[in-house]
Amino acid sequence: MTKVAVVGCGVVGSSWALVFARAGYEVAVYDALPASVQQTLAFVRTSLESLPPDGGGSAEDVDVVCARLRAATSLEDALTDAAYVQESAPERLEIKRDLYQRLDAAAPPHVILASSTSGLPASSFTDHLVHRERCLVVHPINPPHLIPLVELVPAPWTQAGVLDEAAALMERVGQSPIRLNREINGFVVNRLQSALLGEAFRLVEDGLCSAADVDKAVADGLGLRWFFMGPFETIDLNAQEGVAQYCRNLGPMYYGLAKEQADPREWHAALVETVEAERRMLTPANSLPARRLWRDRCLSALVAAKRRVMHEEQT
Amino acid sequence: MTKVAVVGCGVVGSSWALVFARAGYEVAVYDALPASVQQTLAFVRTSLESLPPDGGGSAEDVDVVCARLRAATSLEDALTDAAYVQESAPERLEIKRDLYQRLDAAAPPHVILASSTSGLPASSFTDHLVHRERCLVVHPINPPHLIPLVELVPAPWTQAGVLDEAAALMERVGQSPIRLNREINGFVVNRLQSALLGEAFRLVEDGLCSAADVDKAVADGLGLRWFFMGPFETIDLNAQEGVAQYCRNLGPMYYGLAKEQADPREWHAALVETVEAERRMLTPANSLPARRLWRDRCLSALVAAKRRVMHEEQT
Repeated sequence: MTKVAVVGCGVVGSSWALVFARAGYEVAVYDALPASVQQTLAFVRTSLESLPPDGGGSAEDVDVVCARLRAATSLEDALTDAAYVQESAPERLEIKRDLYQRLDAAAPPHVILASSTSGLPASSFTDHLVHRERCLVVHPINPPHLIPLVELVPAPWTQAGVLDEAAALMERVGQSPIRLNREINGFVVNRLQSALLGEAFRLVEDGLCSAADVDKAVADGLGLRWFFMGPFETIDLNAQEGVAQYCRNLGPMYYGLAKEQADPREWHAALVETVEAERRMLTPANSLPARRLWRDRCLSALVAAKRRVMHEEQT
Repeated sequence: MTKVAVVGCGVVGSSWALVFARAGYEVAVYDALPASVQQTLAFVRTSLESLPPDGGGSAEDVDVVCARLRAATSLEDALTDAAYVQESAPERLEIKRDLYQRLDAAAPPHVILASSTSGLPASSFTDHLVHRERCLVVHPINPPHLIPLVELVPAPWTQAGVLDEAAALMERVGQSPIRLNREINGFVVNRLQSALLGEAFRLVEDGLCSAADVDKAVADGLGLRWFFMGPFETIDLNAQEGVAQYCRNLGPMYYGLAKEQADPREWHAALVETVEAERRMLTPANSLPARRLWRDRCLSALVAAKRRVMHEEQT
C-alpha cells in the first residue's frame, strides 16, 4: 500500500496528511472546500520547515515530502488507487452517513475506510453500507503528527483483518495503535481523561485545593512517569514483586477512594466559572493563542527528547 | 534557615537528604538503625555521581554537597539547630505517634515537623502533642530528588504560617509544593491516580482492551501533555475561548461518561491475575530490578530535558 486518501481538511485531517507524507506515502487530499485543501498543503510545508526531524518534522527534504501530497479535485478523484481512506469530516452524524455512502460506492471493497471521529461509533454511520465490514474508527489524539497514539475501534461488523491492516499501517507511519474489542462511549482515551477530570473538578468544587494545584500535581508529579510508562507499568514497578503485590497492599485503599469518587457530577456553572477565573489569571484570554503555540513548541521538543532518550535506552 | 533534619533513612528519607543537601542546606540524618544512616550517605554520593545536574544531580562538586550531610547519633542530636524536620519513618500509626511525641519534646516550638506519610493524616499522630500546631504532612512523590511535586496537608490545628514556611522551603529546595486546605483520604495525587487506575482496571475487566493498550493510551497519548501541563490547562487550551467553552461543549459528554464510571470496584483476584500475567510477559519477574533502573534513568533524562525545554521557553 503506497497511496492513501485524506478526506476532510480541518486541523485533524491536515495533521494526518503530514503523518502519511512524512512516512513516504502518496497522499490524495480532499475537502468539499478547495481552500481547505490548500490550507492543508500549506500546513504540511510550514510544519515540516519548523519542526525538528524527531519532533514532528522529517529528516527528508521538505520539497520531497510535500511532493507526495496531491490536491484531489473530487472525492472520487481522491480515491483513485487509494488503499486506505482517513476521513476527518465534521462530527455530525448526517454528514458522516452521507459521506460514507459516497465513499462506499466509490471505493473498491478492499479499501479501508477509517474515521477520525472522537465521539461517533462507526456503527452509527456505516450500518447502511454495502461493504460496511471495511469501516472502523481510527481516532487520533490531536495533533497526530506530534502525538502517536491512535485508537482503533471496530463496529460490530468490522472484519478482524481490517483492524490488523489498519494497525499495521499505523505502525508503519510511526503512530502507536491500540485496539478496542468493541465500541464504547469515549473509547479508551476520553474515558481515562474523564476519570481524571472528574476527580480534578471534584477536588476544586469541594474546596480541597486550587485548579492550579491540581495541574501541578499532574505536571510536576503523576505526569512525569505517565509520559513514558502507563498507569499499569507504573504500579507494577512500584512494588518489589510487581503489580499483584501492589494490588494486595494497596487495593483496599484504592477501593476506599473509589467509593468516595463514585459520585458523578455535572460541571455546574459556578464551578466552571471558578476554574475559568483561575485559568484567566494565569493565561489571559488574549494570551491563549500564544500559549497554544507555547504548548505546541513544548510538545514537539519534549516528544523529540523522549524519542532520543528511548532510542538511547534501546541501543 | 540553613539546617534541617532528615529522620528516617529509607528510600524516601534518603532522597530527601539529597534534595536538601543539593540545595545548600546542612542536613542532619538520623535513623534508629545506624546502618541505614550510612546507606543514606552512600545513596546521596552515588546519585550525585551518576545523575546529570539538571536531572536530579548537582552542578556542584560531589564532595562539597556530601559534606553538608552529617550522621546524627541520636534523635536529639539530629535536632540540634534544625529549623525543619522531614520525617520519613515507617507508615505505622504507633511508630509515628511515639516518634512525634519525642520530636515534640526535643524540638523547640518554632521547629516545623513535617511528615512524608502518604496515607496517615497528620491529625492521627499529632493530636496528643503540646505544640501540634507546627506539624503537617509534606508528602513527596517518590523519589523527591527526581519528582518535584510535594503535597502540603495541614491537620485541623496546623498554623497557616507553618504551611507558608514549609511551602517557601520547598520552593527554595527546588520542589513544587501544592497546598491542600484540609485533610482528605489519599490527598490529591493518590486520589487522581485512583480515578485513573479505577477506569484502567474497569476497561481491562470489561474486556475492552489489554492492560498494555491502556498503558499506551497514557504513555503515547494523554501523558504527553500531562508531562508539562495539568488536566485543566490541557482542556483550557483545547477550546478556542478556553475552559468555560470546553465545559459547555463537552461537559454533557463527560457527565455521561462519569455516570458510567460511578461503579467502584474491588480489584478482584482474577482481574489482578490477568494484569499480572500481561505485565510478566512484558517484564519477567527477574527483569523487574533492571526495569526499575531503566525507569529511573528515563525519569532522570526526561526531567533534565523538560527543565531545558522549559528554561529555553522562559528566556
